[in-house]
Amino acid sequence: MDSATATSVESSPGSLIRRRETTTALPESNIPASKPNEDRQKTFLRKYRHVAAVHSRSRPSTLSHDTQVTPSFVGFRNLMVIVLVVGNLRLVIENMQKYGNLICLTCHDFRRKDVLLGLILYVLVPCHLFIAYLLELVAARQARISRAQSIARGGSTSPTKDQQATFQSMWSSIRKAHLSNATLALAVHSWVVYFHIHHPLIGTITELHVIIVYMKVLSYALTNRDLRHAYLHPVKGELAALPEIYASCPYPENITMGNLTYFWWAPTLIYQPVYPRSEKIRWVFVLKRLGETACLSVFIWFCSAQYAAPVLWNSLDKMHSLDFVSIVERLLKLSTISLVIWLAGFFALFQSSLNALAEVMRFGDRSFYDDWWNSAGLGEYWRLWNKPVYQFMKRHIFSPLVSRGFRLSTASLIVFFASAVLHELLVGVPTKNILGSYTAYRSSTSTNILLGVAFLGMLIQIPLIWITHPLEKMKGPNGKLIGNVIFWVSFTILGQPFAALVYFYAWQAKYGSVSKRMGINEPSAPLELR
Amino acid sequence: MDSATATSVESSPGSLIRRRETTTALPESNIPASKPNEDRQKTFLRKYRHVAAVHSRSRPSTLSHDTQVTPSFVGFRNLMVIVLVVGNLRLVIENMQKYGNLICLTCHDFRRKDVLLGLILYVLVPCHLFIAYLLELVAARQARISRAQSIARGGSTSPTKDQQATFQSMWSSIRKAHLSNATLALAVHSWVVYFHIHHPLIGTITELHVIIVYMKVLSYALTNRDLRHAYLHPVKGELAALPEIYASCPYPENITMGNLTYFWWAPTLIYQPVYPRSEKIRWVFVLKRLGETACLSVFIWFCSAQYAAPVLWNSLDKMHSLDFVSIVERLLKLSTISLVIWLAGFFALFQSSLNALAEVMRFGDRSFYDDWWNSAGLGEYWRLWNKPVYQFMKRHIFSPLVSRGFRLSTASLIVFFASAVLHELLVGVPTKNILGSYTAYRSSTSTNILLGVAFLGMLIQIPLIWITHPLEKMKGPNGKLIGNVIFWVSFTILGQPFAALVYFYAWQAKYGSVSKRMGINEPSAPLELR
Repeated sequence: MDSATATSVESSPGSLIRRRETTTALPESNIPASKPNEDRQKTFLRKYRHVAAVHSRSRPSTLSHDTQVTPSFVGFRNLMVIVLVVGNLRLVIENMQKYGNLICLTCHDFRRKDVLLGLILYVLVPCHLFIAYLLELVAARQARISRAQSIARGGSTSPTKDQQATFQSMWSSIRKAHLSNATLALAVHSWVVYFHIHHPLIGTITELHVIIVYMKVLSYALTNRDLRHAYLHPVKGELAALPEIYASCPYPENITMGNLTYFWWAPTLIYQPVYPRSEKIRWVFVLKRLGETACLSVFIWFCSAQYAAPVLWNSLDKMHSLDFVSIVERLLKLSTISLVIWLAGFFALFQSSLNALAEVMRFGDRSFYDDWWNSAGLGEYWRLWNKPVYQFMKRHIFSPLVSRGFRLSTASLIVFFASAVLHELLVGVPTKNILGSYTAYRSSTSTNILLGVAFLGMLIQIPLIWITHPLEKMKGPNGKLIGNVIFWVSFTILGQPFAALVYFYAWQAKYGSVSKRMGINEPSAPLELR
Repeated sequence: MDSATATSVESSPGSLIRRRETTTALPESNIPASKPNEDRQKTFLRKYRHVAAVHSRSRPSTLSHDTQVTPSFVGFRNLMVIVLVVGNLRLVIENMQKYGNLICLTCHDFRRKDVLLGLILYVLVPCHLFIAYLLELVAARQARISRAQSIARGGSTSPTKDQQATFQSMWSSIRKAHLSNATLALAVHSWVVYFHIHHPLIGTITELHVIIVYMKVLSYALTNRDLRHAYLHPVKGELAALPEIYASCPYPENITMGNLTYFWWAPTLIYQPVYPRSEKIRWVFVLKRLGETACLSVFIWFCSAQYAAPVLWNSLDKMHSLDFVSIVERLLKLSTISLVIWLAGFFALFQSSLNALAEVMRFGDRSFYDDWWNSAGLGEYWRLWNKPVYQFMKRHIFSPLVSRGFRLSTASLIVFFASAVLHELLVGVPTKNILGSYTAYRSSTSTNILLGVAFLGMLIQIPLIWITHPLEKMKGPNGKLIGNVIFWVSFTILGQPFAALVYFYAWQAKYGSVSKRMGINEPSAPLELR
């Protein structure tokens, strides 16, 4: 060792500080902690720099099973997000190179008749709610008289046999009227959409409106039926057992125009005389939510036209020739973009729009969904993702069936069946593909495909729910992980894009080119594009 | 309400149990907990099934900023993994449809001369370690005599000026000999690889071997120099300050053939007279690690031939015409597969192979890497991913420079320069592309590209390390997240595939078709494939 250098090192206070830093930075953590020892070590390290015992103790590798502490993998999570982004960036470049710009603002085909009919239905459909209101108004007047008579007859609170008979006969006619009203609401308007509205977007919005009003009418009628029964049979403290929140507006005070109008606009399918309300309207909150909705809608439209449409076009001949491997390849290609559209659509509808509406209506209960993305099975998913519909099904179909002695599984099946019918209406009516088989387009070969995919898609999930049910109940994280993976794969990766493929194919089979109507430039030779 | 039904419900005990389940399953958690109230509630729910207050309190949406509890997003983590797998499955199908099978077991081009030379070098290279041993043997004999004289001269432990002079002159000649030995080891064998081994794989393995032996020779010489100095200058308790682990084999007892042979095979680049050892060899462990290595090697070879090779082929004309957008598109396409190969290669080398070797050698310190995937910057990455080289650089270059008074940043720069030279040797020598510019192939246009990419790639990281350094020190998780993303993007997503592209292009520019040599069927019209 060069002793001159050693001296110069020792005489420079600056280098001493730096040296301490170096010593601290050494990876060895087993240097004796006592002060004199440390000093000796430091002197030593200064002089004998190539001797340090780097390998001073036995240690397993970080990823080895011998390690006691599992290392953090947060870096790999970051990597996954990056790879997803990069992977899609690449697809964006590839898409641009292949197709150029497919967005066309003026290529829609909103026919005059479609727009007119859509507007007329938009006004007509809610009228059924008002018909339901009028029916309830009559029933409430009857009930008031009945109750007054009962009190006049000696103030007895328990109903006489006479009263029960009156209630039964009254309810029988009111029920018939409600049923006709609700059925008409659903049937007539669906018929109009199916046969007279050509544009799928206008059709879907109108059909969605029809179904929502249908469910609201049912909930309004059923809830008021039970409230009226409690009003007429004030026995055994049952009135006191009504939910406390209803106390501020007891039956029949709730049968007013204002109360109905609130229910009409409230973001729920369940009628309650009283809802939890928020203090005031935060207009900034509303604007933010509306901004999100607008941006996401544009994003969804862009994704559909630029990315989903070419994949759908290119799948037509694969579907036609039933080339299984190619169909799977198309499915997988479609699954990414359909997943993105699905997530954006979910957020736009259930988070942004419904929260904006709830804020304006000062509607307190914003629990429109729960953390369905963590669900450990399909059953849990259906309970969590769309709580307005789930709550409706539970309150007005499932619970009544169970309390009438139906088995839980039977009640679940019936709920699923009802749900499947509604899904089929919502998707099948605007696209004119109600349950049935069609001869595929290009009739040179006659491939028959069965439709009613939304309906079958719902029913097919019943075995999957049964399979994943035990996984939901498992205690460790593994069962939940497997269930969650089954949910994602069956529902998002395979189910949705498959349904999209089939409906697109069926539409093409029936109407030929949809391109102009959907706002897409039809490629001149779509089947050659890959 | 139908009272007959109500009675039948009440008389069935089975349905009562089911009903309790239903009540429990209701989402409301604010049902009064007191027992009589609960019973009343139950009776009530049985009778008035459509009245339940589903919206009983104000709640924010799960994803709303108003929520107190952040929901778990573990489901989205699962989704990301699925999307990655599915995305790559799709690429696998696409690749199969486009190219068919590109794997060819008999298409390699291991020339007889290459194999022979590789084998000869495999035997010759370690000889330099034995030359270093012989030099140390001479030095140790000298030192023993010197020390004996010193003790004989009165038992004084502090060295006389005479002794110091002897040590200096002896070290001077030993140093010259060691330096010639190490330089010869590096230079001669690199020369042979560059000019006489054509196959890049054989070349890379040989060059790696050369560099490892070069570093081992240096470490052996420098460590023994310091040990000898301590042996000859037993002052101020410095001998006691030597690492405790060395006590069992003090200098010059460590200068034996057995000790050197252990260092030769030990999975480290740092010489220590004594290493921490494990108790016994677990042969099952060794077999598992070897199995991993074999499987991963096959996997890497498969990925390279089937997935990376076509992308590289298709990038040739893009590189040639410097079509920037297309080069980026190629880079992004290559980045996924190069990332997979990189991770598999890392695991195969640093986890599986080195652990197998360490187990056989009963080498205790298995810390060949740390959790580099979490590193918050490039500096941290280089400290963590390859600890044998990092420890060598720190012990034999960085620490000595700092203790001689160099600034930390200067020392870092020098380490990086040394590291860059070694990288350039490792990549540039076997592919015959040492720093320099070549006229690109298809000499119709004369595009010049600068090589020495590995060298420049290392140097370019210095500013990136400076940029990410403050991020590593930040306290919150955000700085670390940003640093981690910068690390992944700059290194894995852009750096590695870019280097691969450039080297492949340069090789093609110099040698034309590499297909047969690399075990790839050259596509008949590679530039038309996309």
